Amino acid sequence: MTQSAKITPDWIALDWGTSNLRAFAMTKQGAVLAERSSDQGMASLTQAGFEPALHALLHGWELPSQCTVVACGMVGSRQGWQEAPYCAVPCPPLSTALIRVANCSDALEVWLVPGVKQNAPADVMRGEETQIAGFLALNPDWDGVICLPGTHSKWVHVSAGEIVSFQTFMTGELFAAISAHTVLRHSLSGNDWDGDAFADALSNILSRPERLASSLFSLRAGDLLHGQASSHARAQLSGALIGAELAAAKPYWLGQNIAIIGEDRLSDLYSFALKQQGITAQRCDANAVTRAGLTAAYRSL
Amino acid sequence: MTQSAKITPDWIALDWGTSNLRAFAMTKQGAVLAERSSDQGMASLTQAGFEPALHALLHGWELPSQCTVVACGMVGSRQGWQEAPYCAVPCPPLSTALIRVANCSDALEVWLVPGVKQNAPADVMRGEETQIAGFLALNPDWDGVICLPGTHSKWVHVSAGEIVSFQTFMTGELFAAISAHTVLRHSLSGNDWDGDAFADALSNILSRPERLASSLFSLRAGDLLHGQASSHARAQLSGALIGAELAAAKPYWLGQNIAIIGEDRLSDLYSFALKQQGITAQRCDANAVTRAGLTAAYRSL
Repeated sequence: MTQSAKITPDWIALDWGTSNLRAFAMTKQGAVLAERSSDQGMASLTQAGFEPALHALLHGWELPSQCTVVACGMVGSRQGWQEAPYCAVPCPPLSTALIRVANCSDALEVWLVPGVKQNAPADVMRGEETQIAGFLALNPDWDGVICLPGTHSKWVHVSAGEIVSFQTFMTGELFAAISAHTVLRHSLSGNDWDGDAFADALSNILSRPERLASSLFSLRAGDLLHGQASSHARAQLSGALIGAELAAAKPYWLGQNIAIIGEDRLSDLYSFALKQQGITAQRCDANAVTRAGLTAAYRSL
Repeated sequence: MTQSAKITPDWIALDWGTSNLRAFAMTKQGAVLAERSSDQGMASLTQAGFEPALHALLHGWELPSQCTVVACGMVGSRQGWQEAPYCAVPCPPLSTALIRVANCSDALEVWLVPGVKQNAPADVMRGEETQIAGFLALNPDWDGVICLPGTHSKWVHVSAGEIVSFQTFMTGELFAAISAHTVLRHSLSGNDWDGDAFADALSNILSRPERLASSLFSLRAGDLLHGQASSHARAQLSGALIGAELAAAKPYWLGQNIAIIGEDRLSDLYSFALKQQGITAQRCDANAVTRAGLTAAYRSL
């Protein structure tokens, strides 16, 4: 497709998270004509800012009049454009009707995908339910546990088309907070990676999770005393935090059929970690399942 | 002592940490004539800034000519006024000669207390060795484990006047980083405290440390779904992190004679936690042992 070709979508799919907004120009059949993104995530917008941010991103695409837009993610949270209340597990990932945004001009008909909640232990998701719906659309009759690594990693037990239970881990956010806002920041600079250090820390903490607390400061002391490379320390911290997550999530993955939905780099780490435990996880492209889920939501209208 | 009374110390004791500087006007006998503090900690100073910061704090006290100053803490680190290299365990807390600051005017004769290191597992302390020396000066022939809770909590095995081994936990710094720099900040505001929530989380994580990773996001979800009070969430986070520390430090405290050196509030929490495990810890005033340690260092000159 050349740059001058007209983009004439039938509807718009949006993945509108905390930090980013991504838009897909879709056909009725679920094909993607074009894709755009911006950094106007939920966290950077006031309630009145959502519609202008959306118009700005869609500018130039030739939309049908009163164009249907289906959005998942934090856009539907209390701090988002409008709250789309959670559905409680057990439930299908798209179990209740989408919520129409009331406060929007006639040019757009915006629908929000409700999140999913679990009352006890208390847990919530927004956006992942759409990826799960997409995964099930692409893999009908699949039963097992879906792992969605990320800022807030989730482990989701899926059976007979329903989300049975799930658990969230702040692994990615802990890595970021520890890397940027503790004394370890001095010892974790750069982006280099030591795969052996990752594997060692992973296996150490997975088998002895109580060691997590004592393993952190040793990254700083190892730098001060032995000039330990930051590539080693970064990989060790990542291995320790993912090891702690896997130790806690063991009831979710032990002896289960596992699929991983996430960005490649992180999915590689989780896939390796599960492989060490004798589990070969199915890998899925996160963007593909998100679009498939938004298409399933569109078809439910 | 009235404000107009002259302060005529024989020497000056300094506790010069990362964030704060505290000065004590001392007599030869180790009595404190006066005390002052400022926020000119190591982290806020360049190398050239240490002497001016010290002169500013001491201004008005009538010092002897070429006044002896003994300082412990991060002032002796590589990023401090001058590096005072670590002594390796096993060693007495004040095992080698103090290091004289070279780059200082004749009015002051500044001596730095060296820190202590452990090569494997890699660990370091700066400042705590002085508190331990002070504790041993006040409690001669004491054997056991000293717990120093704080930003970087330490557990230190002391026997026959020597530091045998020690282990550092980033518990206080993790609490601060998680409270300020993750999604939990929305659910942890205020200073109220729910003692039962602390006790429950402590006992839960101490007995099942692998649950730490899964316990964090539930603080956010508990707020979103059930309006859980921030006093509850704060105490739960603290209990979980201290529980994880105690689980990892178990070889240090199980069946041991324990003393706690720290500020009152934090010492209360650790004392309570150990009590739940059947251990009655001896409590010490942190300021008193710091001054006693600096006095012991002064006498070693």
